[in-house]
Amino acid sequence: MSRFLSSRLAAMESYVPGEQPQDRRYIKLNTNESPYPPPPGVLNAVGQAQMAALRLYSDPTCRMLREKLAQRYEVGTKNVFLANGSDEILNFAFMAYGERGAVFPDITYGFYKVFADLYGLTAEIVPLLPDFTVNVSRFCNQNKLVVLANPNAPTGIALSRQAVETIAAQNPDGIVLIDEAYVDFGAQSALPLLSKYNNLLVVQTYSKSRSMAGARLGFAFGAEEVIADLEKIKYATNPYNVNRLTQLAGTASLDEDAYTKEKCAEIIQTRDYVTKALRDLEFTVPDSLANFVFAKHKTMRGEALYKSLKQRGILVRHFSGERLEDYNRITIGSPEEMKIFIQTVREIIGGYHETSNH
Amino acid sequence: MSRFLSSRLAAMESYVPGEQPQDRRYIKLNTNESPYPPPPGVLNAVGQAQMAALRLYSDPTCRMLREKLAQRYEVGTKNVFLANGSDEILNFAFMAYGERGAVFPDITYGFYKVFADLYGLTAEIVPLLPDFTVNVSRFCNQNKLVVLANPNAPTGIALSRQAVETIAAQNPDGIVLIDEAYVDFGAQSALPLLSKYNNLLVVQTYSKSRSMAGARLGFAFGAEEVIADLEKIKYATNPYNVNRLTQLAGTASLDEDAYTKEKCAEIIQTRDYVTKALRDLEFTVPDSLANFVFAKHKTMRGEALYKSLKQRGILVRHFSGERLEDYNRITIGSPEEMKIFIQTVREIIGGYHETSNH
Repeated sequence: MSRFLSSRLAAMESYVPGEQPQDRRYIKLNTNESPYPPPPGVLNAVGQAQMAALRLYSDPTCRMLREKLAQRYEVGTKNVFLANGSDEILNFAFMAYGERGAVFPDITYGFYKVFADLYGLTAEIVPLLPDFTVNVSRFCNQNKLVVLANPNAPTGIALSRQAVETIAAQNPDGIVLIDEAYVDFGAQSALPLLSKYNNLLVVQTYSKSRSMAGARLGFAFGAEEVIADLEKIKYATNPYNVNRLTQLAGTASLDEDAYTKEKCAEIIQTRDYVTKALRDLEFTVPDSLANFVFAKHKTMRGEALYKSLKQRGILVRHFSGERLEDYNRITIGSPEEMKIFIQTVREIIGGYHETSNH
Repeated sequence: MSRFLSSRLAAMESYVPGEQPQDRRYIKLNTNESPYPPPPGVLNAVGQAQMAALRLYSDPTCRMLREKLAQRYEVGTKNVFLANGSDEILNFAFMAYGERGAVFPDITYGFYKVFADLYGLTAEIVPLLPDFTVNVSRFCNQNKLVVLANPNAPTGIALSRQAVETIAAQNPDGIVLIDEAYVDFGAQSALPLLSKYNNLLVVQTYSKSRSMAGARLGFAFGAEEVIADLEKIKYATNPYNVNRLTQLAGTASLDEDAYTKEKCAEIIQTRDYVTKALRDLEFTVPDSLANFVFAKHKTMRGEALYKSLKQRGILVRHFSGERLEDYNRITIGSPEEMKIFIQTVREIIGGYHETSNH
């Protein structure tokens, strides 16, 4: 840190992304990436002509992609916002709507707290209930920026659309941001509520179900006035935020929604297999509607399991913190990867039991 | 604008990018893009394997590209920062270093004022001298965030390295940000001063000389502590800010620096031709060291010329504002484009003279 840095930023803590060690090859189940490539059309979307056109600025209005998303999700083009990953949308929303403070759960995507700190917002952090579900009533009558990941991370537990509607209805003077990064793996989107609640902001991403984490493309749906706010901030920070190649790839992906649905169905099937297999090995695993599961063993500590798996070439995500430290978050990889994962866990647990019994 | 938007942002004005009309084909000389494609290696940098790897997050440390830039510019890897366009670097710098205010010229890149407003900074706006050069002494002993585009936009006029050194030496307690977006077209970079001044932040981009405006890639050089500040803000806003494909393209470009140099030399040659031709047509044209010229006709108003050119299918950039309104900023396109441009200007001016004489 330099001596020039502003005092507020100097005191702030940043987000720590999942580890990306370069020392060896791992089965990578730690950052919720898809095990499948994007659809074939995306692979062919970028040719020499598009690379040559890199000399020109990207379209700051993202017109083509925006129109296509509007059509696909049956909203108006003015209800759609695009950004350099959904993190950028969250950033803009905290900047725009946190004046009266923000409220989010204690156990959720770690970036919300970072954004609240970045903008010096008063953050009300509401504990999840003992079963890791959201205490819905605590998110009502807040009338500040309400932020909920649905399904939640790292638990994978989803809120019903009805619960989201209750929260939207009970906060008429605050923006209710529903972060639906993982919604395509089985949860109910809040999108159908948009016509009824102009305080809803529904955020989605190409990083998970659309297999494009490396392209950096997030999108959001909201009332026209809300989208206009986000556009205003974009034009005050980075008007060309989505590059040309990502706009092309994002557009091509929408032409092959059947592929995306098929891959989501495969991940759901693999998730069911993993959940059952872990429960059989005496893990507690909440029902997940995301592309990961959250699991705690009956006796083995979370960190010990994380370390043993890493030694054996499998990366999962371990979090610190009182209620989390015996859990690991495990991304659903390919069926082959998950068979190896379960087999490896079985060996580790077996060895652990043997050791403990002596 | 929604009723939820924070009061400070509601009052703010955003940056307005150059127009991108879709109604017909134009000779586009309005946004300082390169007329040449990126080098052949960049065209081949993205194949199906790279598109398939989009399922994985981009490397938040941009290791490969950062090491290659460090090698190319003969600095340490910890002296290099990468971002989603140089606008993002400017954004981070205003956020990080504006606590005691910012100072920049009245006529310069319009985004500086937008960033100052965005963060509610006290901005001291120093008028350029009557010949559009920077009043160097006014930028000394400020000890706040000093921001200078070198060469400046929209004038194209450059500061010498000695002038930059004076400013860096005379602001030991403020960051001196030199925005070198256009430096590869003949100006002196401040980079050699970096070892001597730990308050210097030198910002460059792939958008102009490297023909990659559509890829969104900016980079900056500074003391390790300064780069660590920018990294901290990146990890608090958007850790994966540079996508995979852009990292690949940016790396490939560095393998073909000879191509980039050759194209810059061609643009410089075309610029000399345009400058002379415009002066022959009774334009005032300051000596430009950028990939554009700034020109005012002896009698014809700037806006009238801009409109006449647009009618004839040529886009240039016209600015409003007291000292600017009779000027236009003209990007240097290909030699063919610029011959058509000069011929068209000659016709417009000739017609204008005929009309005026009757």
